[in-house]
Amino acid sequence: MRSSVSFAVLLACLSPSALAGQSEKISAHAQAQSIHARALVLDTHLDTPLLFARPGWDIMDRHTVDADFSYVDYPRMVDGGLDGGFWAIWTAQGERDLAGKRKARDAGLRRLMDIREMVAAHRNHFEIALRADDAQRIVNAGKRAVYISMENASPLATDPSLLETYYALGLRMLGLVHSSNNDFADSATNPEGAEFKGLSDKGRALLADANRLGLIVDLSHSSNDTFDQVLELSRAPVILSHSASHALNPHPRNIDDARIRKLAAKGGVIQVNSVSSFLIETPKNAERDKAMDSFWEIIEDSARLTPERQREAMRRYHDIEKQYPLPMATFNDYMKHLLHIIKVAGPEHVGLGADWDGGGGVKGMEDIASLPKITERLVQEGYSEAQIDGILGGNLLRLMRQVESAAGH
Amino acid sequence: MRSSVSFAVLLACLSPSALAGQSEKISAHAQAQSIHARALVLDTHLDTPLLFARPGWDIMDRHTVDADFSYVDYPRMVDGGLDGGFWAIWTAQGERDLAGKRKARDAGLRRLMDIREMVAAHRNHFEIALRADDAQRIVNAGKRAVYISMENASPLATDPSLLETYYALGLRMLGLVHSSNNDFADSATNPEGAEFKGLSDKGRALLADANRLGLIVDLSHSSNDTFDQVLELSRAPVILSHSASHALNPHPRNIDDARIRKLAAKGGVIQVNSVSSFLIETPKNAERDKAMDSFWEIIEDSARLTPERQREAMRRYHDIEKQYPLPMATFNDYMKHLLHIIKVAGPEHVGLGADWDGGGGVKGMEDIASLPKITERLVQEGYSEAQIDGILGGNLLRLMRQVESAAGH
Repeated sequence: MRSSVSFAVLLACLSPSALAGQSEKISAHAQAQSIHARALVLDTHLDTPLLFARPGWDIMDRHTVDADFSYVDYPRMVDGGLDGGFWAIWTAQGERDLAGKRKARDAGLRRLMDIREMVAAHRNHFEIALRADDAQRIVNAGKRAVYISMENASPLATDPSLLETYYALGLRMLGLVHSSNNDFADSATNPEGAEFKGLSDKGRALLADANRLGLIVDLSHSSNDTFDQVLELSRAPVILSHSASHALNPHPRNIDDARIRKLAAKGGVIQVNSVSSFLIETPKNAERDKAMDSFWEIIEDSARLTPERQREAMRRYHDIEKQYPLPMATFNDYMKHLLHIIKVAGPEHVGLGADWDGGGGVKGMEDIASLPKITERLVQEGYSEAQIDGILGGNLLRLMRQVESAAGH
Repeated sequence: MRSSVSFAVLLACLSPSALAGQSEKISAHAQAQSIHARALVLDTHLDTPLLFARPGWDIMDRHTVDADFSYVDYPRMVDGGLDGGFWAIWTAQGERDLAGKRKARDAGLRRLMDIREMVAAHRNHFEIALRADDAQRIVNAGKRAVYISMENASPLATDPSLLETYYALGLRMLGLVHSSNNDFADSATNPEGAEFKGLSDKGRALLADANRLGLIVDLSHSSNDTFDQVLELSRAPVILSHSASHALNPHPRNIDDARIRKLAAKGGVIQVNSVSSFLIETPKNAERDKAMDSFWEIIEDSARLTPERQREAMRRYHDIEKQYPLPMATFNDYMKHLLHIIKVAGPEHVGLGADWDGGGGVKGMEDIASLPKITERLVQEGYSEAQIDGILGGNLLRLMRQVESAAGH
């Protein structure tokens, strides 16, 4: 909402000669701008909390991808009309011994604290959202909605009853697993393959707790077996908070058409990811990966990422990009996935979860400021305002209401 | 610091005739004002975080004791020259079954979050302090210091290794127990008396962890046996963060002279409490206590304490005060305890922990705005500026440095 009609459009409207040849295009653009401005626009996987602990990083400042690898901040939320979404407590999967589990427990609570402190520090611009109805209320009050999600249930491994603590402190979505297996479930990308052939007993118990409390269960990163079992067992519809199409690019993180149909048939929603290597075939390059390690090492140590270290990291990144260039997906590739998934699932079961600050962003849609381009393309494809509203956020909120209704049993 | 010399003093200084008869008194007053303004003034037991969750309550607003039972806020910190101190994560001792322990765990994390959110929301006025040296740095930057303490270790009962989580999130003082026994130690006021005759095995392990991490161990509320054992076992000096003198009023919460001497001999510090019923003999009145239950019931449910419910609670309180009046300690009673303890422990081992927002406050020192009166009285008693500096905060910081040095082993 509130992304203003661009100056170019206004100029064009004032120039009848220019209008003559471009009226249809301009009309789609203006119509999209207006739909986008009216809609509640929510993304279900914002990894931005990773940046909150960086010294001197402030969400109220304008940042750029090139300068600091940052994709979301308040000024660009305004530009892109992003009203909020789910802000993730992501925990890297570490060792699964007791020390590793305690480390994950502490990292999760720290990240939760980071999110709540960000909101407390900017309470005129952000507000914690707890129920589906909160989003519109918060936006009407001139603020952005901060739903809290967890990506990887490892912070709960020492004591799964901590899920209740997190719920009490605002958690409303639970992603079971990340890039490798944990105590609860198999991951889609575990190097050694399956461990439980889906859910473990602890995972089944956690799913029941999430249903009972009223947390959306998120299956992005889950293995196909985990997906199938959760779809079978869950008492409420589930989400894929940031996933792309396996039919278009057979990456193990992507979801196949049959499973998309099963998810939709049960009332679920798939939110489409924009990570380039999920969208297009990307050759493995071990040398590049190795070189990138030294980049990630700096970037991921948020608490010590001074502006100097950040500049050093970005220099390394741009050097690696020159030395080992990778194909980079475009906005058109993103739209191919989104449009394909809409066709398979139906427009009532799709949304946006572009993995901002977690690897998302493509040529032509570098950060959230470009979100109105998605709406424009959906208008061009002939989708109605009601359908587009659903994709931009309404479908997610419908799912959330179903999860709320199923809770407490 | 920064409490200005009062207008009356300035007027008096301009009037030679007035000066003639009162020069000594005025001089002590002015000297005290100036000492107080220069000193770091820290209180070691602020229960103010109890109020942070009250709807509409804001620490930046000026409140009064009469209107809302509030003793500490930013405007009165400025008035009273209070630079900060330890802000408590207090947890009422509930049931000790698994459900009760989880409730305590959740309450502790919620209160920690409340404290950190308050600081985030007012980061130009408050800052989290982690080390002894932080207090002066924070005050020099024009802010107030927020050290975090825990009163009652029950939030750690499900998993004592959560102490590391709390430490990572800013905890620097640990009070083992509250008004009744918990899994770690015996309380001074447990209705059924001792359970472990001091520390439990879990309590001894927790003490070792606190020493290792560098947390100040707080023995207010501990039974005498707990006190004796901790004093024996602790590798660092310990604190009584809010205790009064047993010699002056034999209440079980108060500490006897022999133990004060033992504490001081080991480098510890006793911070003097201002709860009326600890300072003077106060008859038990079961009818009043019962009537007060309905007051506490409303007051303690912070999250739902709307201004209307608060006014209702205060009406009940004032009715109870009329129907069942209790003797109320005065500023002079407070000073009797403080001066006695200074004589017993030595001025290097005493400080202020007046239990603000936790029951503290006496006639003539109703809230923190009155703190300069303590300094004035200490000047009148002939204590030096160095000694007074110690009592107002320096002794605490020395203890904290010793705890920091002993950590890591």
